[in-house]
Amino acid sequence: MQRCDTLALCTDEPGRVTRLFLSPAMRQAHATLTPWFQSAGLTVHTDALGNLIGRRPGPPEAKRLLIGSHIDSVPNAGKYDGVLGVLIGLAVAEALEHEPLAIGLDILAFSEEEGVRFAKPYLGSRAIASTFDSAWLARTDEAGVTLSQAIEDFGLDPTQLPASAYDSLEVLGYIEPHIEQGPLLESRGESLGVVTSIIGQSRLRLSFRGRAAHAGTTPMDSRQDALVAAATFITAVRRTASETPDLRATVGRVEVTPNAPNVVPALVELSLDVRHAEDEIREQSIVNLLDEAYHLAQREGLAFTVLERSSQSSVKMDPALTAQLHSAASHHGAPPLSMVSGAGHDAVILSERFPVAMLFLRHPGGVSHHPDETVEEADVAAAIEVLTKFVRSLRP
Amino acid sequence: MQRCDTLALCTDEPGRVTRLFLSPAMRQAHATLTPWFQSAGLTVHTDALGNLIGRRPGPPEAKRLLIGSHIDSVPNAGKYDGVLGVLIGLAVAEALEHEPLAIGLDILAFSEEEGVRFAKPYLGSRAIASTFDSAWLARTDEAGVTLSQAIEDFGLDPTQLPASAYDSLEVLGYIEPHIEQGPLLESRGESLGVVTSIIGQSRLRLSFRGRAAHAGTTPMDSRQDALVAAATFITAVRRTASETPDLRATVGRVEVTPNAPNVVPALVELSLDVRHAEDEIREQSIVNLLDEAYHLAQREGLAFTVLERSSQSSVKMDPALTAQLHSAASHHGAPPLSMVSGAGHDAVILSERFPVAMLFLRHPGGVSHHPDETVEEADVAAAIEVLTKFVRSLRP
Repeated sequence: MQRCDTLALCTDEPGRVTRLFLSPAMRQAHATLTPWFQSAGLTVHTDALGNLIGRRPGPPEAKRLLIGSHIDSVPNAGKYDGVLGVLIGLAVAEALEHEPLAIGLDILAFSEEEGVRFAKPYLGSRAIASTFDSAWLARTDEAGVTLSQAIEDFGLDPTQLPASAYDSLEVLGYIEPHIEQGPLLESRGESLGVVTSIIGQSRLRLSFRGRAAHAGTTPMDSRQDALVAAATFITAVRRTASETPDLRATVGRVEVTPNAPNVVPALVELSLDVRHAEDEIREQSIVNLLDEAYHLAQREGLAFTVLERSSQSSVKMDPALTAQLHSAASHHGAPPLSMVSGAGHDAVILSERFPVAMLFLRHPGGVSHHPDETVEEADVAAAIEVLTKFVRSLRP
Repeated sequence: MQRCDTLALCTDEPGRVTRLFLSPAMRQAHATLTPWFQSAGLTVHTDALGNLIGRRPGPPEAKRLLIGSHIDSVPNAGKYDGVLGVLIGLAVAEALEHEPLAIGLDILAFSEEEGVRFAKPYLGSRAIASTFDSAWLARTDEAGVTLSQAIEDFGLDPTQLPASAYDSLEVLGYIEPHIEQGPLLESRGESLGVVTSIIGQSRLRLSFRGRAAHAGTTPMDSRQDALVAAATFITAVRRTASETPDLRATVGRVEVTPNAPNVVPALVELSLDVRHAEDEIREQSIVNLLDEAYHLAQREGLAFTVLERSSQSSVKMDPALTAQLHSAASHHGAPPLSMVSGAGHDAVILSERFPVAMLFLRHPGGVSHHPDETVEEADVAAAIEVLTKFVRSLRP
């Protein structure tokens, strides 16, 4: 917990926790983590994307287990998102330092997950999973600095990026401990959860286009009010999500044009975020909602358009690793909650190359990406014990 | 029609019609109107607020009829809103120039109705109705110029403002010809309408406050989604307006916070514009809608607040003047449509001191405050003939 507090002081904005990819605050975080890693007997290096890696070699020919998460943050973040996973990994390495292990152990601190600086998330884990596209090196941040330049400014060599990738033959798996960023464990009174899958997600942009008109002189039956149809659609999204078990559907963004109190709205653009652990249910729900949007638009005499902005299939955790993690947690205390992750994580990217599993910690209040983010010390201790037991049980 | 085209060239923004209060374009409009007024036998003066007045004196002791409207415009306006009423008044004066009249006649071109430059509408008619508050002289425009300074810059003397006011004993009434700014006459196939009342209007600002939450990790039944309640409210506004004859209720403005696709909305602020010719129906509808909003907020676990921004009672036109106008129109052709004005006009202000009546002209397409604003030449001719007949029939 103290280490979380200390890392929170590595910030690009004094008084708030803001730690951007390859920023001075990240350099400071590396300088803070490195002696901690070393005093746990780990050898430390930084790969060409700025991922900090603490390594305990295994016996010859033995595979390596990776434990970690990210250490970048959103602006004005909390102290635990990402960071806690790295520090739990470190605590496990410390606990096992003087025990023989049948495997190698790498503690990973990914340099980039949030997508803040270059509007592209998961850069750190993509380098590890060799799904990093070198075209991204030309992307620029808000100050016009290219990703390539940012890497050089951090003292690293972008031409060495391919060497960041891990060979899947040498990796036993990747374990990511993380705060839940949701209310489920707290509401069930559980401290730990084992993730079975990471929810699939679609993001769409919808628009309803009618006709601006005078709010005083235009009779109700002569209107083509884009907002009335959009509002009815928003209520339909809630109804569909409430009626479909475990579906999460959200309209989070609304833009109205011309957005004047005395003008009937001509255009409403809105976002739609739909998530479910089962891709088929997510896709069918979207089809149903778009069908409803189309009919609402027709009824009001509007044009309706839809654009799919992104679609991410749900990701299953590795059944064997997850069962072992579940078993280690059950031996520690009550069986952990098996649950779906509603948010994306580095584990999504690493699952493309390696077996992955995730351990969730109760997240009181459920507020993430916010200074109020919190975690209970006893839950952190439990997570460290469970993962220590888990690593100890692994065979190459 | 040609005069409307010529005045449209008096603009503060070349290529668009934008004529602001006491701007260079308004000076140009005065320079254009003055010789037109004079050649109709009118003597011309400008009062201390910049209202341009063309006067035909009546017999001694006779009262005066005022005909007019405003010549300022919104940015990127059409050619007819306001201007057409002044030019119809001028055409009536021309038609009657060589006839004896039992009354005096003033053609008024108000300098300010739209409220654009000083964010305060109806300044011109308020000066005439002696409801101009001298505290407004300290208001500033976007450039920081005070109203007082703007009057001086136009070559006028703000200390003379009280002299702008007309004595109600000398005024027979005020007639405002205006485009309908709505679709009713066009949909009924009528060219002219006589206004019976100007609709009352309430403007409110509502807010629903819930709690921001992660769109992926927060189950539907744990949300306090401000947008879901606001959207349900918007559908209730439409339903109420559709079920209540002649009620017009509009949500035109919506602001969502934080307005991000992956965050459950914490705060939604929206405008509510409610209008009806009967004040009681308007007020009862608002009570019902706010009651519904309150219950929607409760159901979702939100805080609900409401602020009344303005409330304008409906204004009845003078029954005698309106009957005479109706009669003159009936003698010209088919009886005109008796109708409610859904928008405010200078007549609202002048009704506080003088008998007022309004003549509406069909407005094809119904689009106002827009370059597409249009009017039919035959309807303008009819309006001129009706008003000429009307003025001829007046007795002091």
